[in-house]
Amino acid sequence: MSDIDAFVRDEANALVEELSRWCAIPSISGDPRYADELARSAEHAVELMRAAGLHAEVLQTAGGEPAAFGEWAQAGPDAPTVTIYGHHDVQPADPVSDWTTTPFEPSVRDGYLYARGVADDKGLVHQQLAAVRHLLAADGRLPVNVRFLIEGEEELLSPHLETLLAENRERLACDLVLVADTGMLDADTPTITISVRGSLSVALELRTGAGDLHAGAYGGAVPNAGRALVELIGAMRSPDGTIAIDGFYDDVREPAQEHRRLIAEAPFDAEAYRSMLGVFALMGESGYSPLERIGLRPAFEVNAIHTGYDGPGMRASIPCKARATLSFKLVPDQSPDLVLDRLERWTRDHAPEGSVVELRPLARSWPSFTPVEHPGNVALHGAVERVWGSAPFYVFEGAAGPQRTLIEGLGAECVHFGTCLSDDNYHAPNERLLLSNYLRGVRAAADFLLALGEIDRSKLLVNRGA
Amino acid sequence: MSDIDAFVRDEANALVEELSRWCAIPSISGDPRYADELARSAEHAVELMRAAGLHAEVLQTAGGEPAAFGEWAQAGPDAPTVTIYGHHDVQPADPVSDWTTTPFEPSVRDGYLYARGVADDKGLVHQQLAAVRHLLAADGRLPVNVRFLIEGEEELLSPHLETLLAENRERLACDLVLVADTGMLDADTPTITISVRGSLSVALELRTGAGDLHAGAYGGAVPNAGRALVELIGAMRSPDGTIAIDGFYDDVREPAQEHRRLIAEAPFDAEAYRSMLGVFALMGESGYSPLERIGLRPAFEVNAIHTGYDGPGMRASIPCKARATLSFKLVPDQSPDLVLDRLERWTRDHAPEGSVVELRPLARSWPSFTPVEHPGNVALHGAVERVWGSAPFYVFEGAAGPQRTLIEGLGAECVHFGTCLSDDNYHAPNERLLLSNYLRGVRAAADFLLALGEIDRSKLLVNRGA
Repeated sequence: MSDIDAFVRDEANALVEELSRWCAIPSISGDPRYADELARSAEHAVELMRAAGLHAEVLQTAGGEPAAFGEWAQAGPDAPTVTIYGHHDVQPADPVSDWTTTPFEPSVRDGYLYARGVADDKGLVHQQLAAVRHLLAADGRLPVNVRFLIEGEEELLSPHLETLLAENRERLACDLVLVADTGMLDADTPTITISVRGSLSVALELRTGAGDLHAGAYGGAVPNAGRALVELIGAMRSPDGTIAIDGFYDDVREPAQEHRRLIAEAPFDAEAYRSMLGVFALMGESGYSPLERIGLRPAFEVNAIHTGYDGPGMRASIPCKARATLSFKLVPDQSPDLVLDRLERWTRDHAPEGSVVELRPLARSWPSFTPVEHPGNVALHGAVERVWGSAPFYVFEGAAGPQRTLIEGLGAECVHFGTCLSDDNYHAPNERLLLSNYLRGVRAAADFLLALGEIDRSKLLVNRGA
Repeated sequence: MSDIDAFVRDEANALVEELSRWCAIPSISGDPRYADELARSAEHAVELMRAAGLHAEVLQTAGGEPAAFGEWAQAGPDAPTVTIYGHHDVQPADPVSDWTTTPFEPSVRDGYLYARGVADDKGLVHQQLAAVRHLLAADGRLPVNVRFLIEGEEELLSPHLETLLAENRERLACDLVLVADTGMLDADTPTITISVRGSLSVALELRTGAGDLHAGAYGGAVPNAGRALVELIGAMRSPDGTIAIDGFYDDVREPAQEHRRLIAEAPFDAEAYRSMLGVFALMGESGYSPLERIGLRPAFEVNAIHTGYDGPGMRASIPCKARATLSFKLVPDQSPDLVLDRLERWTRDHAPEGSVVELRPLARSWPSFTPVEHPGNVALHGAVERVWGSAPFYVFEGAAGPQRTLIEGLGAECVHFGTCLSDDNYHAPNERLLLSNYLRGVRAAADFLLALGEIDRSKLLVNRGA
């Protein structure tokens, strides 16, 4: 009979060692020099799944990085099937000199395991895998069918995920997706993520002529690509901080009072949050709290602007070309495709005098929301409450992910679980994972699977996004 | 008896060969690798002046690049003294691959001499020197005392010129400065420059926090250095295109009807000008023509903006730091010091929420204007008219130069002459000088010195800037 608490107590060191071996593989996606390491990491994930008792293999899509797939499907056709999604690719580790210990030599200090990818996302996938392994070892079976999809290019915004899902539709078919790639408000505050924002990123290039001009000789009489870009980007925002693209808010769902209440209930210290982020102020759309701005409202961010000379000394030139990267964060029911259409139309109408503007989409993802009443979230709520000892809070996550692609591609709703913390330095030097919390997560993961076994699978496929 | 027309006819090839030898020296200022070449170029200028019959030597200021000084001072204390200013340093030649012939191997094609520095400014200095040499050789004397100051760091905005003038006040003392570093409307349109704009260039750095943040996770709730910089720079301009810095126009002299008339008289084809500059439109402050905008009105130009990631792919980060280089073009009676004060105050008052802004002056120069009635301009008018066969037009130049530093440092008024053309590619690949026009300039330079000898030197020191 399974005893997850005893397992976690007895096997803690072995689990950490096993996770460390996986984290030692520098599976950096998007850099061709690490292609072999990505393949090695996918194979390693397959081995881990086989050791847990799953059938497993590498999934390869033309042009894509290798994913690892595993399944245990002997719970029978009437039992629910859950596909656990995570990823084994990691962010680049530079600047390596900012790391206390080297990024791909995992090291335990003060209760944390330090390594690139330990929080995002190998540790959270391993958390799920450890739970499955224990249940299969102890009980010889699971109450649900379980599939793992461990993607190899999430850090590249999942460019081949849609194809991968289409090519493996039957193998990945499920009644529920569990995205194992989210975090908690803090280590002792049980948290369930119920939505993610979507995103549209675009590259904008503005030209005003054939070449840079002498600023003294012609200044005041010719267009200036830098000045024009400032004018164009400036006009994208209204003075009150809202986004001025015509029609941008057309599909924005008015924040429900119930959701504002859920956010207000979560513990939040604005000054501690500001200090943790290292910013001089928290600011944004008026009428909303910081967590509402992140979770319930769209946003417009300038990611980069580059125009003119950038070397030692100065050149007093009028630049003829300016480039920007912009991103729009989207909430239900916005579509990045529709926002792109509107942005293109607006940009055509607002190109400054003497300018030609070109827009190129870089990445898009869809917002996603799963009601707290969804049986998957209810099961998760119970599991998390049992392990942490108190009722979890609900979080509306600001960052985008492949949720909507999974939901559409697999035809199932999605829930979220993971024990990443905001000071875990994912995407930054000294990435780490708090081990005590990781182990609590293993317990919650096992509890969740057991709870899921109690649910009538037809109930999982409720209308989404209500 | 001097016959400058015959000299130019007979010596044309020898003059071009002599100029070519000087242009073969890569006297690029500001790049330590070329320090020896700058010294060699200054020595070469000294040799050229000695060959012309002047006493000459290198002038060195602590920390500055070497200048060449020459004089012929035997016209007596009652004769006017003119100091001819030019520079022997040149712009970098990169990208060298864009040159048809190599930049420091001067080459004649289609009536042009191609070489880095031939138009800016060795050819125009040599034009003056050839005239002096001929007059001294033919007549054994000049009707005026002549001094040459051939600076070695004009392309660096003359950072040590003020010191150099102060250290050599007596040697450079004069009744008039001739700046031999300007151009013409076109080869067959005789032109006299009567003013230059001033300039203030600043580096602006804006910070919003300690580090870049994840755009999805925090977008909408934190400041964004790129967005804030857009807001700040955008607010520096009013919607009507004027500059919104409080007090910016306080010292701007209202364009005189007489000056607008002078500009309107000059031949100008807007479409040809637009096409020559390669811009999509001519545009600027309403109520002024393109040449008025350049010559009579101040301007605000964005030289560079850099914020966020600039590499392959994209990073959806919220940048915490943004940098810009801005320049303000100034007209009489604006002072770059006062404009800097006002800009600093305005920036303090307008720093966007959550931002800290730092301003650092990079370069400043003062506007300068010499009335057409000044005896120096009158003498120049006569010389130019005789050579080109028609009355010259007056030009209000947009680019800044060291005029005001020379005027203040030497206590004398300044006139301008040079035969550079706007398609001579100064500061660009394939710099060139039209030789027929260069030779006309030699004739005008000699005529000017003879005409200057007729003037009562006390009349040269009229009130300036009237």
